[in-house]
Amino acid sequence: MPTLILLRHGRSDWNEKNLFTGWVDVDLIDRGREEAVRGGQLLAESGILPDVVHTSVLRRAITTANLALDACDRHWVPVRRDWRLNERHYGALQGLDKAATREKYGDEQFMLWRRSFDTPPPPIEPDDEYAQTDDPRYAGIDVPRTECLKDVIERFMPYWEGPLAEDLRAGRTVLVVAHGNSLRGLVKHLDGISDEDIAGLNIPTGMPLVYELGDDLMPTGPGRYLDPEAAAAEAAAVANQGR
Amino acid sequence: MPTLILLRHGRSDWNEKNLFTGWVDVDLIDRGREEAVRGGQLLAESGILPDVVHTSVLRRAITTANLALDACDRHWVPVRRDWRLNERHYGALQGLDKAATREKYGDEQFMLWRRSFDTPPPPIEPDDEYAQTDDPRYAGIDVPRTECLKDVIERFMPYWEGPLAEDLRAGRTVLVVAHGNSLRGLVKHLDGISDEDIAGLNIPTGMPLVYELGDDLMPTGPGRYLDPEAAAAEAAAVANQGR
Repeated sequence: MPTLILLRHGRSDWNEKNLFTGWVDVDLIDRGREEAVRGGQLLAESGILPDVVHTSVLRRAITTANLALDACDRHWVPVRRDWRLNERHYGALQGLDKAATREKYGDEQFMLWRRSFDTPPPPIEPDDEYAQTDDPRYAGIDVPRTECLKDVIERFMPYWEGPLAEDLRAGRTVLVVAHGNSLRGLVKHLDGISDEDIAGLNIPTGMPLVYELGDDLMPTGPGRYLDPEAAAAEAAAVANQGR
Repeated sequence: MPTLILLRHGRSDWNEKNLFTGWVDVDLIDRGREEAVRGGQLLAESGILPDVVHTSVLRRAITTANLALDACDRHWVPVRRDWRLNERHYGALQGLDKAATREKYGDEQFMLWRRSFDTPPPPIEPDDEYAQTDDPRYAGIDVPRTECLKDVIERFMPYWEGPLAEDLRAGRTVLVVAHGNSLRGLVKHLDGISDEDIAGLNIPTGMPLVYELGDDLMPTGPGRYLDPEAAAAEAAAVANQGR
């Protein structure tokens, strides 16, 4: 039975500085590296060991994958990287301070940009220092100038149905190391979450989330976090929703 | 024109402890990590940037590659790993102290095992703690029980003629991160070094060695180290040979 492990990268430099990141290729901070190692240790303890890893082409996911695989003695597995696993492109917000943006545009606009399913932020200018216009890793790719979650899902799904499905159908345990929004898109698909409800889903960083899949590559049960404390905190958060 | 960059992993834990390593999967020490980062910085400074990386399946080469690629902003390139790039299997010597081995067996036998082209050390027992008998990364592979340099070349060349030639013929700049003996085998082929003379070749750790190749995938000129000081030291060593 194919097993899918999702892992969101650890804390990055721009998480710390409270800036919109998107496709800007920032590094992990030490705490993020520790989260990655802990994620790998949880895999080792659980015995759920990846046969292959898929990452985005962004440093914070790649470094997380490297550290997690090393920690579970799976540094040697085959590696595949693709821009389709990248974080949501945050458009003209990339590089802006989140608090200042909220103050400037107001709560409603701010939350619309952050959580709306189909409203992207304004597009980034191609010559903006935080656009990826001439980045060699995107040679031949029509680099987005902004994305909403719906856009992310549209560019992610061909990768799910292609390289990821290929590895899963071969019965491999597949580790996907990616980002808040690319993973939300995948969990939305797997758990059948509506366009409205997906706004409420937050995937914690550095915690392996495991799905057992059937032949149709849909879950045979709920996804489960390998960290029992984290799982309990998640359950408590859900229980508190709407209070 | 295809470009080939060879990089020998940095100093490992067992280099430090003076033990025979071979296929035992030891980690880099801090100095080895620094060497790897410096190797990547030399690539960045030279502007010779990998389009793809090939590594062995051993941690010390994989970590060196990860750190070097990160340092030259090429962490996102495609990755291929193969056991055919592994270090020479040191047979029953794996895990033994080099000085103690020299004392026990004498200088002549010691140097024969270390540097002979076609005399392998005694084979390791399959149940030895330093054999790789049940290591999942070698599933389906007939794991050697010992190797001489000739054996390394025989198992390495199909990889040179296969995946490496494929990437080079596509015009890519190919980074190979591997080990003292797998790289000696490759340099022997590229530079047409005899079975006798190869014993005298030592490739320094953490220093990118660059070859420009022709359509026949043979060098159009001598390989060159990117570190000018290292290159000068090499030249001085050659000049001193036989004095």
